[in-house]
Amino acid sequence: MDDKLKSWLEISTLAHQYISALDNDQLEEWPTFFTTDCHYEIIPKENFDAGLKAPVIYCTNQKMLRDRVVSLRHANIYEKHTYRHMISGLVLGKEHDGQITTTCSYVVILTDQEGESVVYQTGAYHDTVARSDGVLKYSRKIAVYDTLRVQTLLATPI
Amino acid sequence: MDDKLKSWLEISTLAHQYISALDNDQLEEWPTFFTTDCHYEIIPKENFDAGLKAPVIYCTNQKMLRDRVVSLRHANIYEKHTYRHMISGLVLGKEHDGQITTTCSYVVILTDQEGESVVYQTGAYHDTVARSDGVLKYSRKIAVYDTLRVQTLLATPI
Amino acid sequence: MDDKLKSWLEISTLAHQYISALDNDQLEEWPTFFTTDCHYEIIPKENFDAGLKAPVIYCTNQKMLRDRVVSLRHANIYEKHTYRHMISGLVLGKEHDGQITTTCSYVVILTDQEGESVVYQTGAYHDTVARSDGVLKYSRKIAVYDTLRVQTLLATPI
Repeated sequence: MDDKLKSWLEISTLAHQYISALDNDQLEEWPTFFTTDCHYEIIPKENFDAGLKAPVIYCTNQKMLRDRVVSLRHANIYEKHTYRHMISGLVLGKEHDGQITTTCSYVVILTDQEGESVVYQTGAYHDTVARSDGVLKYSRKIAVYDTLRVQTLLATPI
Repeated sequence: MDDKLKSWLEISTLAHQYISALDNDQLEEWPTFFTTDCHYEIIPKENFDAGLKAPVIYCTNQKMLRDRVVSLRHANIYEKHTYRHMISGLVLGKEHDGQITTTCSYVVILTDQEGESVVYQTGAYHDTVARSDGVLKYSRKIAVYDTLRVQTLLATPI
Repeated sequence: MDDKLKSWLEISTLAHQYISALDNDQLEEWPTFFTTDCHYEIIPKENFDAGLKAPVIYCTNQKMLRDRVVSLRHANIYEKHTYRHMISGLVLGKEHDGQITTTCSYVVILTDQEGESVVYQTGAYHDTVARSDGVLKYSRKIAVYDTLRVQTLLATPI
């Protein structure tokens, strides 16, 4: 199998593990998918496309992600709903110095306490994956969301 | 390619074949994805998380699945709607005695006779895949659903 | 890795690249996923199942696809909404003379200018993939849609 196909498969499994942790209440696993000096943000598509720096969530290292998990567990927000992240359209960019850029679309379906399921958020991940000692981690993940009405619940990682 | 990556790819193709049969009215194929002594159930997440045994559908062998298909065809329920199963977040657990545990999230979109599409059900598969003579089959599949309002239509396999 | 598994992986990456182009406003890339003498159509499931020839969009070569892109850009319809194509259930048929048939389900989520996200269209792709000089392209792609209410917006490629 050629290297490009193998990289696609590896990064695909990484992306599926990532959303599996979010969907199955393994929130403490979430920071472990990132490098220690990672960049994570959630930003509206309108701002992203215009080059505006106005993310609604902005973390510049893994510790900030861990702090966020502690806050979320304390606020107990996460357990009240169920999220299902669907990803599709994964494509890889060029590999450079052991870093590969990659994008994919996501759709998050939310089921609330009454058991009603709605489209909660759609968007695209703009990621950079770093390979270190054979392990793949996100050195950069930007969730660019299309949907506007979801902002009140944005405390939850995407 | 390492064995773990290959297993992920193999089980991924199995999962996609499974939902393809359900979505394309190949209901008679459905039991063939299971071992003869399989366990299949559909259970609400609330009960599953609490360890309660209260599935809405419960089959303990392949013959029960076949009987179910005959019933569904006779009742003619299946043809009235179109389902599209989306799966994401496939992850593998440990392999033990030729059996691999695996989970993934699912979202089923229902389009009714009037052509209206809605989120019908979300949930997660908790599966065990058995390998026998190079063929992969489900020895156990538990569909744990989040959505409550869907129970009236639950005669259809997930 | 056996050939069947490798073909599934290759065609899977092709399908994800295809929807990535559609979802990320790379509409000019869309025709490049097809062979020069390709067949592309969008047809309601009711007509497709009945063997009726009544597609809502029908192109019989790559140039017609390019013309369509020019029209769409001129009409400026495409930029007003964001689409997210989710695909699942990819299965391969037989390979014959370097052509492989394949199907998968799709769900398109539309987010409008007000930021509201809804299920826009569900359906299945019935495709034929041709391999030429190691490159895979669609020689035939039929988008068979389940959803009826979406017809007014059908100018956009699926």
